[in-house]
Amino acid sequence: MTIPDDHPRRESLLSRQKIVDAQAAGLLADSALIAHGRGEAFDYLIGERTTDSAKRAEMEALDRLFRAKSPVISMNGNTTVLAGREAICLAALTNSSVEINIFYRTEDRMRLLLSEIHNMKDYVMENPPSDEIESERWRDMVKSVKIHGENPDAKIPHLKGPRALCSSQGIFRADVILVPLEDGDRCEALVSMGKEVIVIDLNPLSRTSTTASVTIVDEVKRAMERMVIMALEGPLNSNSDWDNRAALVDALNEIGRSTKLLSS
Amino acid sequence: MTIPDDHPRRESLLSRQKIVDAQAAGLLADSALIAHGRGEAFDYLIGERTTDSAKRAEMEALDRLFRAKSPVISMNGNTTVLAGREAICLAALTNSSVEINIFYRTEDRMRLLLSEIHNMKDYVMENPPSDEIESERWRDMVKSVKIHGENPDAKIPHLKGPRALCSSQGIFRADVILVPLEDGDRCEALVSMGKEVIVIDLNPLSRTSTTASVTIVDEVKRAMERMVIMALEGPLNSNSDWDNRAALVDALNEIGRSTKLLSS
Repeated sequence: MTIPDDHPRRESLLSRQKIVDAQAAGLLADSALIAHGRGEAFDYLIGERTTDSAKRAEMEALDRLFRAKSPVISMNGNTTVLAGREAICLAALTNSSVEINIFYRTEDRMRLLLSEIHNMKDYVMENPPSDEIESERWRDMVKSVKIHGENPDAKIPHLKGPRALCSSQGIFRADVILVPLEDGDRCEALVSMGKEVIVIDLNPLSRTSTTASVTIVDEVKRAMERMVIMALEGPLNSNSDWDNRAALVDALNEIGRSTKLLSS
Repeated sequence: MTIPDDHPRRESLLSRQKIVDAQAAGLLADSALIAHGRGEAFDYLIGERTTDSAKRAEMEALDRLFRAKSPVISMNGNTTVLAGREAICLAALTNSSVEINIFYRTEDRMRLLLSEIHNMKDYVMENPPSDEIESERWRDMVKSVKIHGENPDAKIPHLKGPRALCSSQGIFRADVILVPLEDGDRCEALVSMGKEVIVIDLNPLSRTSTTASVTIVDEVKRAMERMVIMALEGPLNSNSDWDNRAALVDALNEIGRSTKLLSS
């Protein structure tokens, strides 16, 4: 499919194609496409742009990743496909590790996603996100990003079956965890473990959004890209009192405003 | 997957499972799952219920089907899977014919969908939608519903490729056509042919919704079920002046209201 450069919804259509291709290649569960469609609809309603409240949430999230002792970025299929490179950049800049962790776990999909993320890591190593970073130093930063997920040897309490599996050196011991596009049950279970849980979710009403410590209501690639650009400046030391409920209300109001604008 | 009887989102989860199963069975294009997800999100925002303005649109649509000379219900993959039986009931009650017509046409999917709709027709024949209909009469009514689509021998003007194909005895000569979940380009092309086009679309802002003669902003199964129940009463002779733009504004306001309610 060819999408004209000036198509107003070009980014959204490119992302959709990535998801369709990845599904055909066996990287995603069936429900991944449905989840992507739900995200598309909410993104459409917030105008396919990063709102001011999302920008604030991204700053707060970044601040927490910088301040963490053992930050982890947990990647599922959709996140890897849509924003894998950006996640590795972010991990390199914030000293986080990455864990491939999928809800409907099969060995085939784990193998494909791990191979994908390692290829992305190789690519990112040779392509620093800014000209101001010295190549040799960037290569070392990316090289030091650990990729967990291959041998899950721990379990998230209160979850049953394969969805409970995680890595003792990754998610299990993390104090701050960024889990874009997370399932509601797992988000609750991670919060119950006492972790600070940062999610990226376009539906401000989802159980994930309302359960998380920090909810970024934004498209995952846009959010990660912006966090990478902010992270290049180094730690923020914002030290704000974060009110996640207020952030969700802001996001809902954005949707409400856009439907009002369009109907007037 | 087992969904508890009292799950508040049971219907939505059952429909999702139907779509996932149908995709695995080869009945649907990949993009069908993404489209379903978009619909889920909009349905969530309107509260997974039929709004008053949708009820009015359903009544208007039914009135037009009854008044038509050659009414056709055009069924794509998602509609067949989600509401195939309801569509056949509606066709039987309004003297409409049915045409299987898919946007990403492949012979395999056409074959599977035609076989599915014929099975559904057999089922509906033995299961009248009301106890008040005499079995023998119902069987004749359903038997007389023509299923087009197997041998497309006409083309919708201004469309290119397989998506232009249709049946001369079905869509091509129809004066009123109900096309649930239609694509924007095709909706425009059908309107350009001078037909009255009735769509069912959960996104009140889509090109399909804004182009159609009558837009029903409702989930396809709920909409069809309600139209079947209304059709059992016979023609309505409502003769209203239909303002489709006003109906879309109502639907947008419903979404706006629900986001406001939830954020207050």
